[in-house]
Amino acid sequence: VILGIVPGASIVDISHAAGPQNIAEGSFLLQSAYRYFPADTIHVGVIDPGVGTERLPIAVAMPHGVFVGPDNGLFAPIVLEQGLLELSGTLEPPGRAVVLENPAVRLPQVSATFHGRDIFAPAAAHLARGIPLQDLGPVLETIKVPAGRGPRRDEDGSIHGEVVHIDHFGNAVSNIPGSWLNASATVVAAGRAVGRLVETYQTGTLVALTGSTGLVEVAVTNGSAAKELDLHVGDTVQVLER
Amino acid sequence: VILGIVPGASIVDISHAAGPQNIAEGSFLLQSAYRYFPADTIHVGVIDPGVGTERLPIAVAMPHGVFVGPDNGLFAPIVLEQGLLELSGTLEPPGRAVVLENPAVRLPQVSATFHGRDIFAPAAAHLARGIPLQDLGPVLETIKVPAGRGPRRDEDGSIHGEVVHIDHFGNAVSNIPGSWLNASATVVAAGRAVGRLVETYQTGTLVALTGSTGLVEVAVTNGSAAKELDLHVGDTVQVLER
Amino acid sequence: VILGIVPGASIVDISHAAGPQNIAEGSFLLQSAYRYFPADTIHVGVIDPGVGTERLPIAVAMPHGVFVGPDNGLFAPIVLEQGLLELSGTLEPPGRAVVLENPAVRLPQVSATFHGRDIFAPAAAHLARGIPLQDLGPVLETIKVPAGRGPRRDEDGSIHGEVVHIDHFGNAVSNIPGSWLNASATVVAAGRAVGRLVETYQTGTLVALTGSTGLVEVAVTNGSAAKELDLHVGDTVQVLER
Repeated sequence: VILGIVPGASIVDISHAAGPQNIAEGSFLLQSAYRYFPADTIHVGVIDPGVGTERLPIAVAMPHGVFVGPDNGLFAPIVLEQGLLELSGTLEPPGRAVVLENPAVRLPQVSATFHGRDIFAPAAAHLARGIPLQDLGPVLETIKVPAGRGPRRDEDGSIHGEVVHIDHFGNAVSNIPGSWLNASATVVAAGRAVGRLVETYQTGTLVALTGSTGLVEVAVTNGSAAKELDLHVGDTVQVLER
Repeated sequence: VILGIVPGASIVDISHAAGPQNIAEGSFLLQSAYRYFPADTIHVGVIDPGVGTERLPIAVAMPHGVFVGPDNGLFAPIVLEQGLLELSGTLEPPGRAVVLENPAVRLPQVSATFHGRDIFAPAAAHLARGIPLQDLGPVLETIKVPAGRGPRRDEDGSIHGEVVHIDHFGNAVSNIPGSWLNASATVVAAGRAVGRLVETYQTGTLVALTGSTGLVEVAVTNGSAAKELDLHVGDTVQVLER
Repeated sequence: VILGIVPGASIVDISHAAGPQNIAEGSFLLQSAYRYFPADTIHVGVIDPGVGTERLPIAVAMPHGVFVGPDNGLFAPIVLEQGLLELSGTLEPPGRAVVLENPAVRLPQVSATFHGRDIFAPAAAHLARGIPLQDLGPVLETIKVPAGRGPRRDEDGSIHGEVVHIDHFGNAVSNIPGSWLNASATVVAAGRAVGRLVETYQTGTLVALTGSTGLVEVAVTNGSAAKELDLHVGDTVQVLER
């Protein structure tokens, strides 16, 4: 669909491996990648369990490019970390989000179940060929923010988060920023003390480290932490400072 | 291989997830996608259990581009739905299919087990750089049509088909066109009544709907129909009109 | 990362399916593909269990392009088969390998765990835009050669190797070149006689043949040899000449 509108477009598949309907994992995958793309990139994200219902199709312009997809919280973590969103969901400053309503930037027939093909891909392609954001549809002032299971710091200094991704190697990536921890932190995953932070995967057997995305992850050297600790997306990760 | 012949070619991977030797699933994947490509696309399909035997390597020119691959029935459903093939396998009008015999459009060494690399990819690349179809080899008047397990309508109004694809979400896609059904149809999969047709995935628990490919599929909202009903490619799907 | 440095670069994903930390399988996948790319290709290979430790990041220029990745033996089989490496690990003639030390061809922040993104991709991109190999860093005279489980011929004429890859179809590919065998060879995998060499997958039930990579593989017609014989990467394959 994209190449039919913008012949020669550079299309990069980031991942098709997010768990079905797993918006949090989709957000994580986008967050891992978007900063490394040229600033004029159009990012398309389609984790879309509500496709065909009342959820809005949107585009949000940011310093790292325009994000196109469903308004279900998928892009909220990125808009938040870019400082462009209040926790209530109000975009601040306003004007950078639109609803994809213009029929001229959709396929002629829009199915009820595949807006990735019928709405998001053509909208992204028209943006890539240079049409202004405002031509896609009316401005949207608020976007959906997912109910927070994000990391939090308690008064006793402990940090609480969850596993947001299991990678190809079985490393369990949490949503806890490595920058929140000091060198003496102890990481606890699925109720088991993993130990102190290390620098690389080769330093011990069961280790915790700040991974390449800047987030704390749990790993087993040359093995699978997910298998060994029976970890899944959504499991609790805690950090105790001592 | 393609980029060595046509530097800068746009190459799009549709899927590598068809079941091994599953020609029907390969046909379905091609059918899902080909209409959305520019009309000058070269479509390469390599589900090729008979590679290296007497089955012919072919190219078939159609309004949506040229299809390149083995003559084992993989492209027949598309040629049929384009109205260019009789059920006997005779192409009508003739002249749009050739056998890939010209050694100048093959790799210098052709293996017995990987014609995707040695015959189909170079043929597609030469077509993409503009050589005429006739330069690939002699005209072929008939192509192979797979033994039909396609959908049929019985005298009592019931429709019989089969599962042709289980998607990433566990949705079971049948080969029954949604356009054959009226609004009161009841879908039965693996002997279990799924219920009436709905519009989107969010309308019930176990649902049947016309999916984005225009075919009837069985889905579980936020779950896997394939797991819940133990559905597999090849299983029977029936539609009873009431 | 690459497109940010070389807009419009042609990027081809060969595979992300090598087993975690499986350097031998990574070498096999690269060996299967590199000859079919244009000679000015930059090949990036990142099977990198030692990322962030003392293992060196390197680039090796060869007739089929420049290879960029970790110095852990991943590229050694290719340098060996190109006749540019002694078994001791000394490059001969010297001058074709460098250590990727120049900070100007790395991302500004280099993580300890993802050199594919931070070192190898940018180095490859700078090579693709035309900078000389010598600008990447100092010349390296030796590279690491993996401890050999490569194929060997015994005095009695028998050949001993191992499974290096299980493909999508369940075919078990060994590291034994088909050119080593004569027509009367008997192949033994996992202790079971597979039988004599055939030409195509359709010739018998359990068969051995020289596959499209030039290596001996074990296959089950329309089935999975890996499942039927319980074969895994690393299992022994023997050839007995009779």
